[in-house]
Amino acid sequence: MKFNNRNVSISDKAKIGKNVKIGDNTVIYDNVIIGDNSIISNDCIIGEPLNDYYFKDDYVNPETIIGENALIRSHTILYAGSRFGNNFSTGHRVTIRENSVFGNNCRLGTVTDIQGHVTFGNNCWLHSNVHIGQKSTIGNFVFIYPYVVFTNDPTPPSDVCIGATIGDFSQIAVGTVLLPGTVIGKHCLVGAQSLVGGNYEDYSLILGNPGRKIKDVREMKSRETGKSHYPWPYNFSRGLPWEKEGFDEWKKENGYEND
Amino acid sequence: MKFNNRNVSISDKAKIGKNVKIGDNTVIYDNVIIGDNSIISNDCIIGEPLNDYYFKDDYVNPETIIGENALIRSHTILYAGSRFGNNFSTGHRVTIRENSVFGNNCRLGTVTDIQGHVTFGNNCWLHSNVHIGQKSTIGNFVFIYPYVVFTNDPTPPSDVCIGATIGDFSQIAVGTVLLPGTVIGKHCLVGAQSLVGGNYEDYSLILGNPGRKIKDVREMKSRETGKSHYPWPYNFSRGLPWEKEGFDEWKKENGYEND
Amino acid sequence: MKFNNRNVSISDKAKIGKNVKIGDNTVIYDNVIIGDNSIISNDCIIGEPLNDYYFKDDYVNPETIIGENALIRSHTILYAGSRFGNNFSTGHRVTIRENSVFGNNCRLGTVTDIQGHVTFGNNCWLHSNVHIGQKSTIGNFVFIYPYVVFTNDPTPPSDVCIGATIGDFSQIAVGTVLLPGTVIGKHCLVGAQSLVGGNYEDYSLILGNPGRKIKDVREMKSRETGKSHYPWPYNFSRGLPWEKEGFDEWKKENGYEND
Ligand SMILES: CC(C)(COP(=O)(O)OP(=O)(O)OC[C@H]1O[C@@H](n2cnc3c(N)ncnc32)[C@H](O)[C@@H]1OP(=O)(O)O)[C@@H](O)C(=O)NCCC(=O)NCCS
Ligand SMILES: CC(C)(COP(=O)(O)OP(=O)(O)OC[C@H]1O[C@@H](n2cnc3c(N)ncnc32)[C@H](O)[C@@H]1OP(=O)(O)O)[C@@H](O)C(=O)NCCC(=O)NCCS
Ligand SMILES: CC(C)(COP(=O)(O)OP(=O)(O)OC[C@H]1O[C@@H](n2cnc3c(N)ncnc32)[C@H](O)[C@@H]1OP(=O)(O)O)[C@@H](O)C(=O)NCCC(=O)NCCS
Repeated sequence: MKFNNRNVSISDKAKIGKNVKIGDNTVIYDNVIIGDNSIISNDCIIGEPLNDYYFKDDYVNPETIIGENALIRSHTILYAGSRFGNNFSTGHRVTIRENSVFGNNCRLGTVTDIQGHVTFGNNCWLHSNVHIGQKSTIGNFVFIYPYVVFTNDPTPPSDVCIGATIGDFSQIAVGTVLLPGTVIGKHCLVGAQSLVGGNYEDYSLILGNPGRKIKDVREMKSRETGKSHYPWPYNFSRGLPWEKEGFDEWKKENGYEND
Repeated sequence: MKFNNRNVSISDKAKIGKNVKIGDNTVIYDNVIIGDNSIISNDCIIGEPLNDYYFKDDYVNPETIIGENALIRSHTILYAGSRFGNNFSTGHRVTIRENSVFGNNCRLGTVTDIQGHVTFGNNCWLHSNVHIGQKSTIGNFVFIYPYVVFTNDPTPPSDVCIGATIGDFSQIAVGTVLLPGTVIGKHCLVGAQSLVGGNYEDYSLILGNPGRKIKDVREMKSRETGKSHYPWPYNFSRGLPWEKEGFDEWKKENGYEND
Repeated sequence: MKFNNRNVSISDKAKIGKNVKIGDNTVIYDNVIIGDNSIISNDCIIGEPLNDYYFKDDYVNPETIIGENALIRSHTILYAGSRFGNNFSTGHRVTIRENSVFGNNCRLGTVTDIQGHVTFGNNCWLHSNVHIGQKSTIGNFVFIYPYVVFTNDPTPPSDVCIGATIGDFSQIAVGTVLLPGTVIGKHCLVGAQSLVGGNYEDYSLILGNPGRKIKDVREMKSRETGKSHYPWPYNFSRGLPWEKEGFDEWKKENGYEND
């Protein structure tokens, strides 16, 4: 089924690390570099050539670099010319265009669509069906939930392209649209189905259509406990680097003293 | 083209019913059981192994049970460990994760994404591009329209997971987000692009961002006829079990006297 | 990789033009006609048979006509019974159902889903993840951005199907829902994440949930220049027929004097 090398096609200009498994029907193009112990599942396209491939005889595929321990699920398409840190994982049918940079430990859900020319820090988790427009800049530990859209053209159509910028630890709940040029600080929460433009300081709770800062996330009270869940890293650590030592300890060791 | 057995891969631990057709490039994993007269089209993955498959040598694929007369359209991925009643159908590129249970006569549209650990009754119709989070519980004859999202984490990220519950005959119009723990009664209508949380009694018309009960659906008047379209089973029967006998007669015979 | 004719299947009842390239694993069904110099990439299905194919022995696939210079990206599914003008292009995983008509120079983004029975003019650009319901009618130079949904059933579920109608040059920003029967004039702009129903005259700026006409687009002032960007064809021409001569000149030559 998987990893039987049925109908697999790997360029002899690709560099495949040690102990890499490649699923059936998968195609790996020129100048792809895959780190050790990675799994590329069935029906994937890695290093999908850019448009010029179709039209220019001297086309050379730009380098695509995937770190160690990747888990790329089936039907994912990664264009040539992007870099992915270690422990990168995708759901099914993910599409990532060229010139995208991902830090370590990033995870993308099924059908998520990255338009290229974007930067992600470490430990970003994008759930299913997220759409990130070009020129977006996303920090570390940013989680983005289904059907969120990042835009970049304020007056469509135009030649302007200004993406959104999201600070470390911020959370963007489902169905939210970020208007072009939105700047969101650290540790913010954007509520579900909001329409957000403008600049927001650290720890903002932003809600509504049009979106407004409602309060400081630290003032949000849980109905169950009466205490605030935010900043969330004190209350959630599954799969995160402070899982064992706690957030305070981890912050000290990792240069996040002021967060 | 279809059903020529080009590049098909079927586990010898799968049980395939009588007169089942399997499309080209489709993969059927261990412990899949497919009922008679079902059609699995091209490029599908049936019984997609869970995560442990990649990492544990003694992995055993949980049972996947598909009833009779299924029509699974191309590029659909059904994870192992789910059950599908008779006459189950999907559009293209549907993804259904493990521990999902569907009654009979359910239909899912193209790109729809079921996150697993959900329960559907009979005759649920999900259109294209619907997203159902884990722990959702959906009754019978519930129709869900494109770009609807069911959430489950009230304060993301957290370890809490409380899905939405939807009563029989309720309709969720396009682009609506249901917040975690939302409970919607029977025969409700949630209007397009609403953001809904909380509890709603039977026959509610729920609208807006934030969503509110506006009125009883039975009071909604059609601009054309001046009469209410709801409860809709009196006015719509195409493909439904009361198509011939009418809703009143069918209710009596099927234990829905009070609906 | 591409165009090596690995695992390709082409009906002998298809007519393939000169210099057409067909990607690996692609299937082309009966009665598909592809114009010269077109590229059909990997894993596509062209002329996907309609439902009767599964159930009727005498099924004949309706004609599918693709013009010259098409660029159909991987995993796209085009149902039988649609017509596509010249220079038609798609992103990945596009689905287009039967009885769809597209003029020349139309472009559709990744995952976009056209439900069939729709008409598009020339030069329509649909970005990623757009959903167009049946019976929609779209003019020329209409651009539609991600996560826009066109609906057609005013009181779901019912047997009524009235699509939206969009005039030439109008722009529908991300995440907007158009309610059934919405009529939008020429040169309108619908703002992001709006919920729009009703009739709007030419040059309307329409915003909000529920959507309202806010002003004339010609009165919108850019924060940078103090001038209006709309009507946009005076300020944006990349890839459009007035790129060289300018919009005024082009209008005169092409019967758009009054736009
Ligand atoms: C931001 C959020 C946490 C606010 O929840 P909350 O603090 O519990 O808010 P409450 O339910 O107490 O509501 C307070 C008020 O704000 C309104 N409100 C809540 N969320 C809103 C939102 N996203 N947009 C607009 N209004 C909202 C409520 O209607 C209520 O108004 P009222 O007082 O007039 O009745 C919640 O909206 C949210 O987005 N949750 C995350 C859902 C999600 O995407 N999870 C991840 C995927 S599973
Ligand atoms: C719920 C619904 C049926 C209400 O339609 P309706 O009763 O005809 O409502 P009307 O158009 O008469 O509007 C009454 C008022 O409610 C507002 N309104 C209507 N639908 C609304 C919605 N979904 N959210 C917020 N406000 C809404 C209208 O703007 C209008 O306000 P006004 O009186 O201030 O102008 C409609 O919104 C809807 O969701 N239709 C289903 C679309 C769909 O998803 N179909 C299935 C897929 S094709
Ligand atoms: C329609 C649009 C251009 C309006 O932008 P704008 O004229 O710059 O509007 P402003 O930012 O000056 O806002 C004016 C007011 O309208 C509100 N507003 C702006 N856009 C809104 C929208 N889409 N819905 C509801 N309200 C909106 C603002 O909150 C502001 O309210 P305030 O005065 O109370 O603060 C913008 O909303 C939009 O949709 N941009 C297109 C994004 C997109 O989809 N691009 C293509 C994909 S990349």
